[in-house]
Order: sequence, then C-alpha cells, then structure tokens
Amino acid sequence: MTVILGPNRYGKAETRLVRVVRDGVVHHIKDVTVSSALSGDMEDVHLTGDNASVLTTDTQKNTVYAFARKHGVAEIEDFAILLARHYVESQPTVHHARVEIEEYFWDRIPVADDSAPGADGKRHSFVRSGREVRTCLVHHDADGTTTVVSGLKDLVVLNSTDSEFSGYIQDEYTTLPPTRDRVLATAVSARWRHLSEASPYGESYAEVRGCLLGAFAETYSLSLQQTLYAMGERVLNTREELCEVRLAMPNKHHFLVDLTPFGLDNPDEVFYAADRPYGLIEGTVLRDDAPAALFAWE
Amino acid sequence: MTVILGPNRYGKAETRLVRVVRDGVVHHIKDVTVSSALSGDMEDVHLTGDNASVLTTDTQKNTVYAFARKHGVAEIEDFAILLARHYVESQPTVHHARVEIEEYFWDRIPVADDSAPGADGKRHSFVRSGREVRTCLVHHDADGTTTVVSGLKDLVVLNSTDSEFSGYIQDEYTTLPPTRDRVLATAVSARWRHLSEASPYGESYAEVRGCLLGAFAETYSLSLQQTLYAMGERVLNTREELCEVRLAMPNKHHFLVDLTPFGLDNPDEVFYAADRPYGLIEGTVLRDDAPAALFAWE
Amino acid sequence: MTVILGPNRYGKAETRLVRVVRDGVVHHIKDVTVSSALSGDMEDVHLTGDNASVLTTDTQKNTVYAFARKHGVAEIEDFAILLARHYVESQPTVHHARVEIEEYFWDRIPVADDSAPGADGKRHSFVRSGREVRTCLVHHDADGTTTVVSGLKDLVVLNSTDSEFSGYIQDEYTTLPPTRDRVLATAVSARWRHLSEASPYGESYAEVRGCLLGAFAETYSLSLQQTLYAMGERVLNTREELCEVRLAMPNKHHFLVDLTPFGLDNPDEVFYAADRPYGLIEGTVLRDDAPAALFAWE
Amino acid sequence: MTVILGPNRYGKAETRLVRVVRDGVVHHIKDVTVSSALSGDMEDVHLTGDNASVLTTDTQKNTVYAFARKHGVAEIEDFAILLARHYVESQPTVHHARVEIEEYFWDRIPVADDSAPGADGKRHSFVRSGREVRTCLVHHDADGTTTVVSGLKDLVVLNSTDSEFSGYIQDEYTTLPPTRDRVLATAVSARWRHLSEASPYGESYAEVRGCLLGAFAETYSLSLQQTLYAMGERVLNTREELCEVRLAMPNKHHFLVDLTPFGLDNPDEVFYAADRPYGLIEGTVLRDDAPAALFAWE
Repeated sequence: MTVILGPNRYGKAETRLVRVVRDGVVHHIKDVTVSSALSGDMEDVHLTGDNASVLTTDTQKNTVYAFARKHGVAEIEDFAILLARHYVESQPTVHHARVEIEEYFWDRIPVADDSAPGADGKRHSFVRSGREVRTCLVHHDADGTTTVVSGLKDLVVLNSTDSEFSGYIQDEYTTLPPTRDRVLATAVSARWRHLSEASPYGESYAEVRGCLLGAFAETYSLSLQQTLYAMGERVLNTREELCEVRLAMPNKHHFLVDLTPFGLDNPDEVFYAADRPYGLIEGTVLRDDAPAALFAWE
Repeated sequence: MTVILGPNRYGKAETRLVRVVRDGVVHHIKDVTVSSALSGDMEDVHLTGDNASVLTTDTQKNTVYAFARKHGVAEIEDFAILLARHYVESQPTVHHARVEIEEYFWDRIPVADDSAPGADGKRHSFVRSGREVRTCLVHHDADGTTTVVSGLKDLVVLNSTDSEFSGYIQDEYTTLPPTRDRVLATAVSARWRHLSEASPYGESYAEVRGCLLGAFAETYSLSLQQTLYAMGERVLNTREELCEVRLAMPNKHHFLVDLTPFGLDNPDEVFYAADRPYGLIEGTVLRDDAPAALFAWE
Repeated sequence: MTVILGPNRYGKAETRLVRVVRDGVVHHIKDVTVSSALSGDMEDVHLTGDNASVLTTDTQKNTVYAFARKHGVAEIEDFAILLARHYVESQPTVHHARVEIEEYFWDRIPVADDSAPGADGKRHSFVRSGREVRTCLVHHDADGTTTVVSGLKDLVVLNSTDSEFSGYIQDEYTTLPPTRDRVLATAVSARWRHLSEASPYGESYAEVRGCLLGAFAETYSLSLQQTLYAMGERVLNTREELCEVRLAMPNKHHFLVDLTPFGLDNPDEVFYAADRPYGLIEGTVLRDDAPAALFAWE
Repeated sequence: MTVILGPNRYGKAETRLVRVVRDGVVHHIKDVTVSSALSGDMEDVHLTGDNASVLTTDTQKNTVYAFARKHGVAEIEDFAILLARHYVESQPTVHHARVEIEEYFWDRIPVADDSAPGADGKRHSFVRSGREVRTCLVHHDADGTTTVVSGLKDLVVLNSTDSEFSGYIQDEYTTLPPTRDRVLATAVSARWRHLSEASPYGESYAEVRGCLLGAFAETYSLSLQQTLYAMGERVLNTREELCEVRLAMPNKHHFLVDLTPFGLDNPDEVFYAADRPYGLIEGTVLRDDAPAALFAWE
C-alpha cells in the first residue's frame, strides 16, 4: 500500500471588496465577497513543501483589489470570469481556477431635497437592503472550458395558505396528521447553470428571481417538492440561456398552536415558528438536452 | 458577613410567534419574537426552591400565544404593554414585568394577475424584507408605572463621501493619518423613549426611521459622533412624543486599498471592508426636560 | 425644549491579540480580545465635529499591541487595569476608561517524544480547549477609582437527574405538568465583583470556576433559581476577595420524548434538546456588607 | 426542449437528541444531532404533489427518537447505519438513504466526595468539553452497498514556531515577503473513509484524532499543504481500516504587528489574529489501492 495525493485546491477565501463608482456627485457601490481557489502542479508543495508552483493566497487577494480598480466590477459573473481566466492564463502551474462571489444589495437613501444649495444633487448615501444574497460560481480550466453558475440564497418566503400535506406513507413511526391548510415557509437557495459564458447576467438574475418568487406564490402546493419543481420549471421555461436549476429549500415549520386548553380555537392564525429540526428538500430541474455539467457545480 | 439575594428576574426568552390575519382572500402577517421577565416575591424560590410564587416560563409562553389569538398583535408596543400589565395585575407575587419584542418585516410578493380565475384576488404570499429589525422594551410596575422604549437594530448604512476625520489627539501610539474623504458606514442600533404609553407607535416608528436615515445621509460628517448626535437631535426635534434617544453605532471600517505596488492609483474607489476590530460609538441625546427614566432602559 | 447630549463613550471593540512568550524551546500563548471605551470632554465632537479631545480608536488599538509587547499579558484583569489607567492618566480630556477582555484557553498538544533529536524538547503546539471563555470588565475613573469584575461565559453544564419542578402557580394559561425528575441544563454566564484591584486573579478564577461547577453538580435542584443561588453563595463563601456575583442562566430545555405512540416507554432516557424559546434566569448574590458598585457593572 | 427532474433528496435535518444511560447512580450521556435524507420514487411528488411515496420528515424524526430508545446510541456510525438500513429496507419506494450525525463531547464534573451520605456515589453531572465536534456520514443503497465516512470539525490548532513560507511565485501582484518563522494556525475539518462498515469506530476515532494532532505538532512546516499531507499520510499509515482522508484547513492568519512606530521591536511575540480573508487549503490523501468512493462523500 502506498499513500498518494488526491484532488486538492487552495486559495483565498472571503476577500471583502466594496467598489465605489463616482459618477460626478452621483455614486454607485458594489459590495461583494470574493473567494478563489486554484489547482495544478501541486505535488511538490504537498510532499516536500516546495512552493515554486504556488501563487500565494495573498497574491490572489491583491489581484482581486487590483482588478477591481483596473476593470471595475460590473456583473459578478463577469468579474469572476476575468479573475479565473487570469490565474490560469498567467501561470503555467495553475491548471484550473474556481471563483465564487457573493453580492449584497444596497438601496439608495432618498435625500429630502438633493437640488438644495448644500446638497448640489449629491447621491452617495445607501442602506443595506437585506434582501437575498446574489451568488455566482465560475470555473475556468486550462483546456479552455469555462462554466458559470449563478444563484441566490437567503430568499425567505412564506405562503399563509394554499398549502396542503396528506396522502403520505403511514408506517409504525408516523404520527403526523394530514392537513388541508398550512403555512408554507422556506429560505430559498437556488443556483442555475448557464449554457455559455455569454449570458446577460444582470437581466437574467432579475428574471430568475421573479420566476422563483412568482412560482412560489402562484403554486397551490400539495408538497414542498411540488413547489420546488414548479419554481425550477418556470425558470427554465422562461430563460433560454439556462439549462439546469438546483434548489435547496428547508421547510421552516410553522406549527399551529393548540389553544384549546385556554378555551380558544385557532383557525390557522397563531403559529409557532420552529428552528430545529427542519425538513430539507433538495432537487434538480434540468433541460433534457442539457450538456454535461463537468466541474460546474463543484 | 452574610450572603443575601440581590436583584433578580426570570422569564421565557425568544418565543417565536407568527400571527396571520385573514381578511378574506387577503392575508396579513406579523412575525415577532417575544421575551418576558418577571420579578417579585422571589426569596423563597432562591433560598429553598419553593416555587409557590413562580408563574412558570412555560405559562408565559402560553400567554403570548393565547393573547395573540384573543387580542391580535397590532403595534408591538401595544402587545408588550398588554402582556406586561397582565402579569403584574393577575399575580400578586409578580411586582414587575419586562417585555421585549422584536419584529421582522415582510413584503408582499406581487402576483402576476390576482384577478385571474385561479387566483381569485388571493394575496397570501410574502418575502422577508431583510431590512432592519424593529424592537421595543416595555416595563410595567406594580406601582402603576409603565415605560416604553421603541427601537430598531441592524439598519446598515453607508456614505461614500462627505466624511472627514482629522484634528484628533496625537500621542506616542498614534499612527492614523488624517483624511479629507472617507467611506462612513455603520449598523445603527437606536432606541427611543416615549413620554407616555399613549404614543401612535406605528406612525412614530416610520417617522423616526426616516429621521435617522435622513440625518445620516444629509450630515457632512467630521466624526461619527457628530453624525450620531445629528441623528438623535433630528428625531427629538421631529417627534414630540419622545424624550430620549440612545444610539450605538459601530464604525464599520472601509480601508482604502494601497494599489501603488501594482502601479495603480486609488482615488477613493476600491475599499477593503474590515470585520474586526471596529470603532464603537455610543451616545445619548435627550430633551433637557426629560422625566426620570426609572427602569425604562434596563 | 432644548436637545442636549447625555452619557456617551467611544472606543475600539474586539481587538484580537495573540501574545507568544518564548521561554527557550517552550512557548506559552495568551489569546485575548480587547475592547476599550473612553468618556470625557466629548461635547465638541458631538456638536461640531471638533476632534481635539478624541484619542482615536485606531490609537487605542495600537496601544493594546504596544502594551502587550512592553508589559506582556499576565492575568487579563491586570492588563485591563494597565490600559484603563494609561488612557485616563495620559490624556486630560479622558475622564473615564472602560476595558473589557475575553480570553480563550488552549491546551498543549502532547508531542510523542520531545526529547528526541529532532524535537529538542520543543513545546510550541496548541489545541483550542473550547471550554468556557474567561472575561473581565475594568473601569478606571479620573477620581482614582478602579473597579474590577471578573467572569466567564459559555460554561455549558447538565445534570441528568436530581432536578424536580413542581408547586408553581396554576393560572388559566398553565399547562405544564409537574415533574419529579428532569434534565437540568444551562450555559452559565457569571460575573463577580472584586472588593479591590489587588486580587490574585488567576487563583481566584480557578477557584470560582470550581465553586460554580461544584455547586451546580451537588445541589439537588427544586428550581433553577435555587441552583443559581447556591452557585453564587458558594463563590462568596469561598473567596474573600469578592463581594457580589451576577449570574444569567438560560434553562436549556430537554424535553422527554413521548414514545408511547410507538409502543415504547421512556424512563427519562431519550430527550429532545430544544433551541427556542428558553427560560432565562438572572440573579444577583451579594455580601450584605458589599460596598456600592458604582459603575462596576456598566 | 423538455424540462425534467434530476437528482433529488429530502429529509429531516438537525434532529437534536440527548440520550441518557442510567447505570444505577452513574449516568452516561450521548449528545448528537441527526440529519437524514432519502431518495427513490420521487417523480410523482415533484410533478403532481402525490405524496404516496413519501416517508415524511416528521416520521424520520420520530424514528430517530424511537431507535434511540430501542437500540441506544453506541458509536454514531453504528447508529447512522442502523437508521439508513431501516429506511431503505422498510420502504420499497426509498432506494437510498443518507444519514449524517454530529456528536458533542461532555466531561464529567468531579464531585467533591461522591461517597458521602447525600451523594451516594452519584455521577450525573457534566460540562460540555467544547473540544472538536465528531461527525459521520453514512450512505446505504437499495443495492446493498453501505459507505461510511467518519470525521471531525472545529479542531483549532496552532504552532507558534517551526513554520516557514518562501520560494513561491512572484508575479506583478505579489507583495508578500517571505518568512522564516511564523505562527501557523488552522481549524481542522477532516473526514476519513472506511474500507468497510465493520470498523471499530470508537478506537478508530481516538487514534485518528491523535494522528492529526501529532502530525500537525511534529511537522516542521514549509507550507500548510505540506502539513495537511503529513496529517493525512499519518492517518492512513496508522489505521488499516481507512483508505482516504479529506482535509479542509483554513489558514487562520496571525500577522506580526509592526511596532517600530512606537520604538519597539517584535521578535515574533505580538500577533494580530485576523478574521477575513483567510487562506483555505483543501486536499485529499488516499491509498493507491482505495476502492471507488461511489456516493460516499456526497
């Protein structure tokens, strides 16, 4: 028996970058966290500690900041592709790059009178929107392949009716009563794979988000799986540039409180929102002609 | 030397309550976390374990749910007052009640065509807004006194310019260079004390939030303390029902990245958003005729 | 009505410091987080943004690191006193300093044979112990007063028997059945006030920790309040340098699972450990001759 | 183009279970969190909401508690195998089960005199050890295959010397100076794959933990990759029942503070422990004759 090195990668995780664009007195901000990981000729560093093939994680961090200055940060997918290509193309020992970016949204704070003398039309104040986090995951390989997955997480949604649950298996450990009306709540994590790296990422994101929310709201739900599938299906039916959607949706249980000990009924009005345990539904929806995913989801 | 019992309280913390109001096909939700704590004749339970004066924390939880059904949850301050009074007035051994509530905001998910046959005008789908958390802290004492403090937390704001910092003390450990232009960012925690328990809490909250955002955005800042004071001052000058504002504002440092090693300038555009350490500015702004706070802030 | 400035303070929070002492090939580490806050002549900075009285939070951070080099970090209370005195004594505009420190414990990793040729008796490897966090809170005022509070948090303990709960108030919202045998679990947060700043802090900490654990384990509990009091009482009866103990103990509920639907009994063996809501018991135990606390607990 | 259902699974996540074994007056506790996920005939539930093939997540939770009573919880791997087999073997529509368990360690609180009359030799008091979390991941498939991966996480370790870093790639974005002496710190996440399901899990865990700590402590490190490989190699060279180790090790940077502005040197003694960004090193070490992993790591 011999011990050998298997798959490996290394990089700088969670580089926090805020990029301000100053368009005269009107400013724009982009608030992102970038994580990169590289693979390649890494035998020596593992076996002997020879770092000759290592582009340090500190350098990766510096590259993020320098690229933000040189190229700006438009859509996060574009910035991730730029970085991933750079690492592979500039370093012969780097054969593969993986770049992951999260983006946090900000809204503009309205200013009472931005045409006032003191204000001079200034627009440079922002409040964190706190809505979902936008994500992307890009791979670029030395063979020239680029894969792009976009996504979002922490999109918390709730339907206060139009959700049932019944007809499931009854075994000796089943005690759950069926219900014809329940609260259905989840925190959507969704990721979707692009057919090529040429998607209109900004427009695509806005539309996918709309599809996810719309299908969640408009589906009369007999199970969370059905809702999940409807969400993924609507995305693929709406956006041609996509071929696969992966969703992870915790069932954030809202239990109807039993108020009968207090002489009260509870017609689906008072709920206890539980933390743990929670159901967890994970599923994939894809086009039947979707090309192989390769390393896209890794 | 004798050992004695000092101040004490006990209660149920973080009871999660979601209240649905069904107005025909249009639903409304209220999502809150309630914590209550009681004080009173508690010598025996500490010294001998005699629970005869204890209204159990389980009962406190039940009361929250039963009251939600019986009285609904309008403004969180009103619900907190109702609970606090109930505990003190219904139990001779309870001399003081403290109720704290957090509220999380939801937005309605727009439905494509809610007049469609299937839709029937239904409005029961929501998405967590993720904006700040609304808070309140209410005390009610057996002597009849009620105090009400409203607040918010996690209101994250950022000005990308109109902030300077200079002219501070130079001692032997000072290395910070002065700056004429910096990013100013903070997560506002604010609490404000009402003169009486008869405030219009919903309107008051919306207006105070607007004052805090407006003053943050419109103050040309020479220090975060100056901004903090301007925020509190605007609140008190705008809302007559309030007498005191307490603010805690971490200085979420955004450091300008030095790009000169890469042959690049950085005209206030590329920033590193740091986690720790952070500055922390805490301050109180009050009316000179504010009545004594008593236990309001405890 | 005039708006005025009330109590305020500012400082650098959560400065992370790891101090290595190199005693030949044997190393020692001290891992702490330091937060300082100053008060004094702060009218101008709030009202006009004049920073002339401000010792910047950046300087406070630098001071922590410089003092760690110059003076080392023995007991955290000593280091906090040193810093607090320095700020007040070196700056006429600083009238009061508050320093809070957390310490994380590490254990030594045993080395197979540290007398081997390669090893040379080296002792420089550590593993985070993960036991509780040690804390302190020190105030120093320009009037010369110093107060010292030591403490710990996240000390999670559990008794699997010798805990009852019964005899409590029955009102219309009470449904909890009494129990003669339950699991009692809590995460102890405790803080204790020293009579003077001359305590033997290291020995004192070890002894107090032992008292808290011992009294928790050895008290047959009729209520968590009784256990809390027994813990504080044992501390004060054991350590003469202390005058007051404050404890906050969440009741981490462990609910007995009802297995009767599956034809099984459950003789206090299978429990569901709940997250929220939880009981929260807070109490103070003190010597009857304790001096005034002043600002010690703020 | 047609939209189809891809890979999916569903289950109950994070069921909290505390199991007490009462051996007369001496008690033992097992504190675990169980997550299960099932796959199988799930087309209908996704496409039409027909739940006939669904073993509900509530039933999965009940099964955990019932099995804890019937079978006890010995090693977590054994308990996970029991559950996974049960789901697949008892339900024709369930073709595959995945069970993940975390275990938290507790130490016994020593009692002053457990032979005293009141004590009667009682041993039922515990304190959370706070050391690493033990983990396992078990798959069982309808084809009879079982895979077992054991692991740990949050094992935080630090070497205060015997770590260098130099000789890496210098590109136009490289500014990091080489160092001959640095602090090396990481939070080890490790998982190891068993050759069969018949391993002695308890002994195996203890030995692997010792190997990881030992190799971390005794490796003179030229890079974190080298340390990672040495850790995995030692595990495989020591434990015959294992064939593959996967490690993820963040480089928890400890930056030497520059004290020269204050006229002080800093001979590797005073460090700033940074939060983000951090290096992240991930690698696999395996036997050259390791059998195919199948779904073991999913």
